[in-house]
Amino acid sequence: MDKNKQSQNVRTVWWEEDASSAYVCMIDQTLLPGRVVTLRLTHENEVAHAITTLQVRGAPAIGVTAAFGIALALRRFAQEQRTANADATVEQACERVQGVGAMLCQTRPTAVNLSWAVQRMMRRAASKYASVAELVRALRDEAHTIATEDAAACAQMGIYGAELIADGDTLLTHCNAGALATVGSGTALAPLYTAHKAGKHIHVFVDETRPVLQGARLTAWELQQAGVPLTLITDSMAGHFMRYGNIKAVFVGADRIAANGDVANKIGTYSVAVLAHAHAIPFYVVAPCSTVDLTLASGEAIPIEQRSREEITRIHGVPIAPEGVHVANPAFDVTPHRYVTAIVTERGIARPVYKDILHVLCGARDAEEQLLRKE
Amino acid sequence: MDKNKQSQNVRTVWWEEDASSAYVCMIDQTLLPGRVVTLRLTHENEVAHAITTLQVRGAPAIGVTAAFGIALALRRFAQEQRTANADATVEQACERVQGVGAMLCQTRPTAVNLSWAVQRMMRRAASKYASVAELVRALRDEAHTIATEDAAACAQMGIYGAELIADGDTLLTHCNAGALATVGSGTALAPLYTAHKAGKHIHVFVDETRPVLQGARLTAWELQQAGVPLTLITDSMAGHFMRYGNIKAVFVGADRIAANGDVANKIGTYSVAVLAHAHAIPFYVVAPCSTVDLTLASGEAIPIEQRSREEITRIHGVPIAPEGVHVANPAFDVTPHRYVTAIVTERGIARPVYKDILHVLCGARDAEEQLLRKE
Repeated sequence: MDKNKQSQNVRTVWWEEDASSAYVCMIDQTLLPGRVVTLRLTHENEVAHAITTLQVRGAPAIGVTAAFGIALALRRFAQEQRTANADATVEQACERVQGVGAMLCQTRPTAVNLSWAVQRMMRRAASKYASVAELVRALRDEAHTIATEDAAACAQMGIYGAELIADGDTLLTHCNAGALATVGSGTALAPLYTAHKAGKHIHVFVDETRPVLQGARLTAWELQQAGVPLTLITDSMAGHFMRYGNIKAVFVGADRIAANGDVANKIGTYSVAVLAHAHAIPFYVVAPCSTVDLTLASGEAIPIEQRSREEITRIHGVPIAPEGVHVANPAFDVTPHRYVTAIVTERGIARPVYKDILHVLCGARDAEEQLLRKE
Repeated sequence: MDKNKQSQNVRTVWWEEDASSAYVCMIDQTLLPGRVVTLRLTHENEVAHAITTLQVRGAPAIGVTAAFGIALALRRFAQEQRTANADATVEQACERVQGVGAMLCQTRPTAVNLSWAVQRMMRRAASKYASVAELVRALRDEAHTIATEDAAACAQMGIYGAELIADGDTLLTHCNAGALATVGSGTALAPLYTAHKAGKHIHVFVDETRPVLQGARLTAWELQQAGVPLTLITDSMAGHFMRYGNIKAVFVGADRIAANGDVANKIGTYSVAVLAHAHAIPFYVVAPCSTVDLTLASGEAIPIEQRSREEITRIHGVPIAPEGVHVANPAFDVTPHRYVTAIVTERGIARPVYKDILHVLCGARDAEEQLLRKE
């Protein structure tokens, strides 16, 4: 396997711009691993649709996508105004930004990175601007900053998290918290890539992650591209291989982390955490501070998205269950902090009791931002 | 829903005979729930193929199928001899029976019912017979007796197990241990059907049971046919709904139970058992004595079938994982007896310590059979 491949992460979401238009670009993740197709979106409604239908997914990646979506919408708005020889004020442009932000926030409820990114864009828009063109540039820059920070956070989480991995370790991961879930090397997978790159021999058990199969379709593909040895298993095999597969640690991402360390993540994460606990296997959550929601005291308050029944009853359109059967399809579950061995952020590793350490690590950021806002 | 429907179980495996030929008949379970197709097999190799490819599955059902398969093979052998005006001795016929039995035992290694049924047929063949025709009749009768006993065992397990279910209970099951896994009302599902028929209101969470989806395709279909309310979930949701779904008990079947109460069952059962334990939810195993293997001291010695990678990487032929990915596909796992609240058999309910009670409940049968053999 080509070791150089892994230093080049898959590009997940990015911005393109030419004289006539701007584009929010992304790999259509619903078509992976069979086909690698790039989408070039020109309208915020397409961006919303891409988030809703999981063409782009992963908490940090949808945050970045929403930021680019707002920048895209404002640029288009300004262009339409010019074409129509209309004369929108900065205030009108800001209203448009707010409307688009609110619309994008509605697409998926659980990952807090979405509203976090939208709020950052709103704050940037709330400064004084001499012209709409200046606002357009400012929001495009802010979206790029969010993307750049995400990639840097991934790299830093990779460095911190790799310390938890020894040469020869077998690890387990659930869902996809890799390059495809971020604009960098990933959250949960960043430490694995860093360890692999440093020459540590690792082997990764990958839960396929029904119903949407992010493990089988995305994580297996990503690790394969990077030359990281893996074994794909069904979700139901995790316990069996924790007992017999010599698994040394579990690494997962997060969609929202409450102030007490409770973690919302892809459905099935809770089961994996309970199983890891029963086998005395460390259970690590890797997520940037943008995933930490200090406004929620515990995970009980995290909204859990319910998705369509067809995700359960059909696979690639093929029915696998009887017609009309009743199904439940919560897209996420909440793992209580007592099952979480450590939370790896770009600012350091938090260990229990989480309440204080998460405030120290991630609360400071909010304070800084508030400070910046007042400047 | 028509309450009468559930008293009529789906027919899984049965024997048909006319002047010219005999047939082992079965519903092709690989086509459920989309199509209900009956197979009429005339050759023991077709029977072996049906077991290997899961056209018939479920520990008791494959035991009955193997018994019918031996009876079928011997009948065909006798007919061929007659047609050829050959004059096979009873000894030659017995040799043929042994060969077919050995071949059928090779089809699937984990469920002990298969070798148990084959051994019963062998013992019956070992008596003195005046003619091949008499042996043919004796083995056909023995296969029918095995089938009849299986149906009776299901009914009795239903009666015993239903005592563990209260009106209003929500239950969870994994894989299919219902009518389709037996020639009666099922093992794990028998108590549910009995409780439902007695007017107890129950609701069943059904794990879809990847990779082969016996929960989604078979259990959901069976319960739906019987009018038992159910919710289909992915395997990864079991923990979440144990926490929030008010689940009162788990009912599963078994493919082999060791003398100490360790239980081999469909992959994922172990995870469900650990999760049930963590949530203080009773975990019940329902299986006839033919599934109890008193020759094995513990579950460590149970052979675990490894099935093809395509069961993981493709669903109905559609690829869901990258080409060439490494997969693991153990078809079963072993749940240690410490996670098993009780084992429901047709002779009564065993609770820990299992070692003695299983010998009392299921060992007696062997003693009786040995006695019968000597008569």
